[in-house]
Amino acid sequence: MRRNLIALALAASLLALPALADEAKPAPTPTAKELLAKSGPSEWRRPDPQNLLQMQLPTGRVLIELAPDYTPLHAANIRTLVHGHYFDGLAIIRVQDNFVTQWGDPNDDDNGDKSKIKPLGKAKKTLPPEYTRPIDPKLPWTALPDGDVYAPEVGFSGGFPAARDPASGQTWLTHCYGAVGVARDVGPETGSGSSLYAVIGQAPRGLDRNLAIAGRVIEGMELLSGLPRGPAPMGFYAKPQQRVAIESVRLAADLPEAQRAKVEVLRTDSPTFAALIESKRNRRDDFYRNPAGKIDLCSIAIPVREAK
Amino acid sequence: MRRNLIALALAASLLALPALADEAKPAPTPTAKELLAKSGPSEWRRPDPQNLLQMQLPTGRVLIELAPDYTPLHAANIRTLVHGHYFDGLAIIRVQDNFVTQWGDPNDDDNGDKSKIKPLGKAKKTLPPEYTRPIDPKLPWTALPDGDVYAPEVGFSGGFPAARDPASGQTWLTHCYGAVGVARDVGPETGSGSSLYAVIGQAPRGLDRNLAIAGRVIEGMELLSGLPRGPAPMGFYAKPQQRVAIESVRLAADLPEAQRAKVEVLRTDSPTFAALIESKRNRRDDFYRNPAGKIDLCSIAIPVREAK
Repeated sequence: MRRNLIALALAASLLALPALADEAKPAPTPTAKELLAKSGPSEWRRPDPQNLLQMQLPTGRVLIELAPDYTPLHAANIRTLVHGHYFDGLAIIRVQDNFVTQWGDPNDDDNGDKSKIKPLGKAKKTLPPEYTRPIDPKLPWTALPDGDVYAPEVGFSGGFPAARDPASGQTWLTHCYGAVGVARDVGPETGSGSSLYAVIGQAPRGLDRNLAIAGRVIEGMELLSGLPRGPAPMGFYAKPQQRVAIESVRLAADLPEAQRAKVEVLRTDSPTFAALIESKRNRRDDFYRNPAGKIDLCSIAIPVREAK
Repeated sequence: MRRNLIALALAASLLALPALADEAKPAPTPTAKELLAKSGPSEWRRPDPQNLLQMQLPTGRVLIELAPDYTPLHAANIRTLVHGHYFDGLAIIRVQDNFVTQWGDPNDDDNGDKSKIKPLGKAKKTLPPEYTRPIDPKLPWTALPDGDVYAPEVGFSGGFPAARDPASGQTWLTHCYGAVGVARDVGPETGSGSSLYAVIGQAPRGLDRNLAIAGRVIEGMELLSGLPRGPAPMGFYAKPQQRVAIESVRLAADLPEAQRAKVEVLRTDSPTFAALIESKRNRRDDFYRNPAGKIDLCSIAIPVREAK
């Protein structure tokens, strides 16, 4: 039972063992597994194949959902890069502990051979920042109740953790675990999507509104996070053999149906997602005696499952 | 320059390039490197050898500072385990993505051979919870200004990120990145320190006040975080060969001076630490255009350096 550092997998029958007569004891909160088992089919969505990137590594598949509602120019440019098979043969070039895993062209950094930089093909070399966008009532918004250190309001928008500021009228995606951001040079208009990073540690929310977030990893995060770290301070691998190769990146829409990833994501505006959040806010069972009563934006995982 | 996803290493001379005449432009915030270079020797401390664990893995050394002000019974029991060389030959048994890396006796879990469980020697098999303790004005406290989703007050106490609740009069260490917690069974009094975990992802603050935090990793986190993840849902390695062996764990006080780790930690009540926090709250340079003006507790790294 030492496995149960966190009693995620505890069966309900186990939880009911002692003190059945103890009227004062509140009922245990339902587990994620129990809540998901009761979810309806309409609470799940298949990501739009136009927004679904399938990145094949030697170790497995990473799925990234693009966020064109927030970064449309970046989504379009990344699609163009992928149509041109730009990422095939490139690599994971950087893993900085408690920060990011970054991939792209190994020759396009300070140690690289500039003469061998891979051309971007039809894609643009730089893009406008797209760090924030105007709040629009047509965009879905599921607010969280417990506040946030960084932003006036936080919640979920169409499957993405996001923030907004009614005073400025702006909204933006947030750098939570799994967020996929656009690496850039010093100037704000220097990103293209040809080098991307995924957040692998404590959410670096100070990056919000300073970098464009192109999407979110919805499957395979462990293939990006569970890698040896590169040398300090920034984690760029010093030796080519340390880099994990990218075999290919494809847009699901460009693949025949049989090769498209068959996954469903729980809608962030669904009753089951709301119940999951509430259960996590006030987790109470024989293991958890002091429910936080709170949850922060970046501590909420969005369930993904195989599509039937 | 694509290296500069985060311009941590940008020299001050580079930052001053354009627009020297632009009076409206605020001066760039000092970098961590610049601030640390100006720190005084008295702002640094050597961890008490009685509180410093040196864990040797095949891949390198992990240093853990115990927190007896918060979890004295656990610190004492872990010292007893270490005196008895309890951890030598045990292993990292679990790596759950975006959560924890856990180590201890592989036979002491659901798949283990119970007949081979290593005895704890003179150490206690269970301890009282030590999840919170009374606020005491004699404990150091450096408050943070930006609030917290989970606790009424957060800050640093003697080198550890912590929270407190004036209403209840209680204070506790928080599950930030690198926190070392005490794994336990379902009952709150079932931990001993014989199995420990380190936080490797987004701070699971819902664990606060539900598990004892014995200390914090001050060196070598990347050796715990950069490991392949075990299978879902909980990340316990299924095959023995996946586990990283623990060669030894020693208390610095038990070692001859020459073998003690020579490290210094920046005092969390020092002016330089305050300046680091302020710089990170309002980071402004040619890369960062929109300073957050805020910082959350678990996003602040405590500098560690080699002692002279």
